[in-house]
Amino acid sequence: MKKEITIIGAGLVGSLLGIYLAKRGHKVSIYERRGDMRNEAVVAGRSINLALSDRGLKALQEVGIADDVMKIAIPMPGRFIHNRDGSNAFQPYGKQGQAINSVSRGELNKKLMDLAEQHGIQIFFNHKCETIDWKKNEIIFENTQIQQQTNHQLQSRYLSGPNSKQIVTLNFQLLFGTDGAYSAARLQHMVNHTKFDYQQFYIDCGYKELAIPAGQNGTFLLDKNALHIWPRKDYMLIALANLDGSFTGTLFFPFEGETSFTKLDTDEKVLEFFTKEFPDVVQMVPDLVQQFSQNPTASLVTVKCFPWIRGDKFALIGDAAHAIVPFFGQGMNCGFEDCSVLNQLIDKHGDDWTLLLQEFEEQRKPDADAIADLAVNNFIEMREKVADPLFLLQKKIEARLHEKHPEQWIPAYSQVTFSPHIRYSEALQRGQRQEAIMQEIMKIENISSKWDSEEIEKLILSKANS
Amino acid sequence: MKKEITIIGAGLVGSLLGIYLAKRGHKVSIYERRGDMRNEAVVAGRSINLALSDRGLKALQEVGIADDVMKIAIPMPGRFIHNRDGSNAFQPYGKQGQAINSVSRGELNKKLMDLAEQHGIQIFFNHKCETIDWKKNEIIFENTQIQQQTNHQLQSRYLSGPNSKQIVTLNFQLLFGTDGAYSAARLQHMVNHTKFDYQQFYIDCGYKELAIPAGQNGTFLLDKNALHIWPRKDYMLIALANLDGSFTGTLFFPFEGETSFTKLDTDEKVLEFFTKEFPDVVQMVPDLVQQFSQNPTASLVTVKCFPWIRGDKFALIGDAAHAIVPFFGQGMNCGFEDCSVLNQLIDKHGDDWTLLLQEFEEQRKPDADAIADLAVNNFIEMREKVADPLFLLQKKIEARLHEKHPEQWIPAYSQVTFSPHIRYSEALQRGQRQEAIMQEIMKIENISSKWDSEEIEKLILSKANS
Repeated sequence: MKKEITIIGAGLVGSLLGIYLAKRGHKVSIYERRGDMRNEAVVAGRSINLALSDRGLKALQEVGIADDVMKIAIPMPGRFIHNRDGSNAFQPYGKQGQAINSVSRGELNKKLMDLAEQHGIQIFFNHKCETIDWKKNEIIFENTQIQQQTNHQLQSRYLSGPNSKQIVTLNFQLLFGTDGAYSAARLQHMVNHTKFDYQQFYIDCGYKELAIPAGQNGTFLLDKNALHIWPRKDYMLIALANLDGSFTGTLFFPFEGETSFTKLDTDEKVLEFFTKEFPDVVQMVPDLVQQFSQNPTASLVTVKCFPWIRGDKFALIGDAAHAIVPFFGQGMNCGFEDCSVLNQLIDKHGDDWTLLLQEFEEQRKPDADAIADLAVNNFIEMREKVADPLFLLQKKIEARLHEKHPEQWIPAYSQVTFSPHIRYSEALQRGQRQEAIMQEIMKIENISSKWDSEEIEKLILSKANS
Repeated sequence: MKKEITIIGAGLVGSLLGIYLAKRGHKVSIYERRGDMRNEAVVAGRSINLALSDRGLKALQEVGIADDVMKIAIPMPGRFIHNRDGSNAFQPYGKQGQAINSVSRGELNKKLMDLAEQHGIQIFFNHKCETIDWKKNEIIFENTQIQQQTNHQLQSRYLSGPNSKQIVTLNFQLLFGTDGAYSAARLQHMVNHTKFDYQQFYIDCGYKELAIPAGQNGTFLLDKNALHIWPRKDYMLIALANLDGSFTGTLFFPFEGETSFTKLDTDEKVLEFFTKEFPDVVQMVPDLVQQFSQNPTASLVTVKCFPWIRGDKFALIGDAAHAIVPFFGQGMNCGFEDCSVLNQLIDKHGDDWTLLLQEFEEQRKPDADAIADLAVNNFIEMREKVADPLFLLQKKIEARLHEKHPEQWIPAYSQVTFSPHIRYSEALQRGQRQEAIMQEIMKIENISSKWDSEEIEKLILSKANS
């Protein structure tokens, strides 16, 4: 039975979900708070690059759009570490041939919107979800475009009260909230719920984007096929390549404290700080100080909630259900996997939306919780440990083991990033178990001289298989 | 410098806070969502009895109203346990002379409202907080009383848009949100905040009130000077005395599962269940089945959030900042203590509201977190352990120790309930340490025969003082 499906949010997950559902013959409409980004200039400092990995790719493949998307992606087979002393190192993320892919959020979103429209989906922009009446199955949107117009005739025609808001009321049959970490749909779900478990917490670091321009003739000033990291313990800078030769840099930095956004309150202090900590970046970015003062400082939130659904009428999907910090590069991938899992459950349960939404929630909730925790943990790993020689040795041991015994030892990062058949919750558990084993191994005397011996290999595998 | 102070919520904490601030000469107005309960009948099944203990009393004393309130309270020096087999037991809560006090929420709230008005505070009823504009320092209320009227003239006079809402806009100088666990002020604080940490979670039990009537001529059918508990492991019934000879009973019961609200879906099942589990209650409550089907089933939430304040303009106080489950009987007491702590900080910092609100939050946040955790833990203790002989023995050992060495050993319950000089966060830590010691002690062979020996006493004290 074909449904009329309403999606709130035309972001990455909303657009992809729409494509999945439209391909099954449902009539899909998407309501988006923002204007159509395809007609608007990108806001400086909010460009954001994402790392598309196997889970996300798998979902794109299922609806036949992976090749299209990969055209605008740049493969990154490893991390490129820039140390404070000027030395550097390359760490492969996985085995030979495995890579994550740098892709611009904006470009990807535009492409997904195009594809959604090609699948017959109508996207209504400038529709801000104000309230949802769960008894009447009714959403009230504010059409913000009308308000922006200054034409007096229009204003008087649409005036409907002292606030001069143009209100659009819509009945829904089946509703999805895919409107991201600060979901308006989730808020309406929450405030009209008698037993809603909810948690949001911020890490003590915020971020600021800093664009690294292309060199002469669109050349890349850094290796484009790597995710660049300048780890500095309490903070870090990362950079991902764009197609035009530029890189999008992001500084993850404490809000408060000794070295923090609060303390870097003059151009002089900013320049002094970067000159000391990231001298190579100062070389590459002539307008660094200007960017630092003009680009916004954003915060990083984790959101966990339950339940995600209401009978056969409503589900939260993607960040709206489970916002995570970006340090495992899995936010988008997890949201895309949500779509893929929902799709499998439609195969399994057909039109029984009550059952399939319930099973979706049951299956995805532990996985979403797991990747949320993994992402916070990776934040610590990325800024504190990637420059630590012992940690690097551990990763080298694990990588070698994975190359030689790909089934018996899969490093946690690889499980999450390159093994979509392993659930996030399973990856978390297996990862913790492996980490405990490796902690033991790293205590062995002279481990740095015999790390690649048969003795160590056998020891690890016997522990792993016990 | 005298301030104009606005309080949202005329509940227990809002009314008391108003009295504290009015006594200092500030001009206080309270806006309450509900109508004036002093003119309205109590809603059946939502009467609720509270246990007023030393922290709450201390706060009432500070503003000189403790005696007034104690006139409507009934002291409860201990728990009266009703076992399934018909046996029973009395457990004192503390030392000789210590007691908690049963008081009706409604009666207490009415009294506090009367006292607030006597202190010159104006209370505006039927004012529902809709939005707060933190830049303009403006609150928008809906006056819900107007809407309730059917007078056409009135309606047309107040009509201000298609929703026919009567909107009241108010500027505030200093605002307090004391509007409880589902605080509208907190929601406005949250949705307009860039880094707000927030958590709400529900326990798997709900509750339903069941009134136990007075006997002939207003006699009490149970000992009025005790908090009655019928512990049944996965659920429990409690009852607290009212002045008129009745008791307010509350069943804490799982929402779902083998034995749950969901399963008790017919009058026959309800009667069968109560007859088996609480036969004495069936005797005392003739309309038990009717009450069970008519009274609402309510849920129990814990709320933790941060920050509670905005500069010198706003603070959340009481449940609005830190809602807790009722199993330590500390919700109201904690909220009253908030008022007392704020008052001490006004003494300390005078008119520097920025500093004093900041210190209020810093001081109270760990204490609120601690009592929230203690309350959830006590839920388990009350329903599972109060009928366990070994647990009872442990409490007996601790009580004896406390009588003999009141400074060296204060049981966790007494620290929270009878020792307002000990902070909740300290009580939690000391309690955990003592529990670890007692776990060791209870493992001693033949402990039940030598529990009151000098040997055991010395052993415990040496561990406690090491």
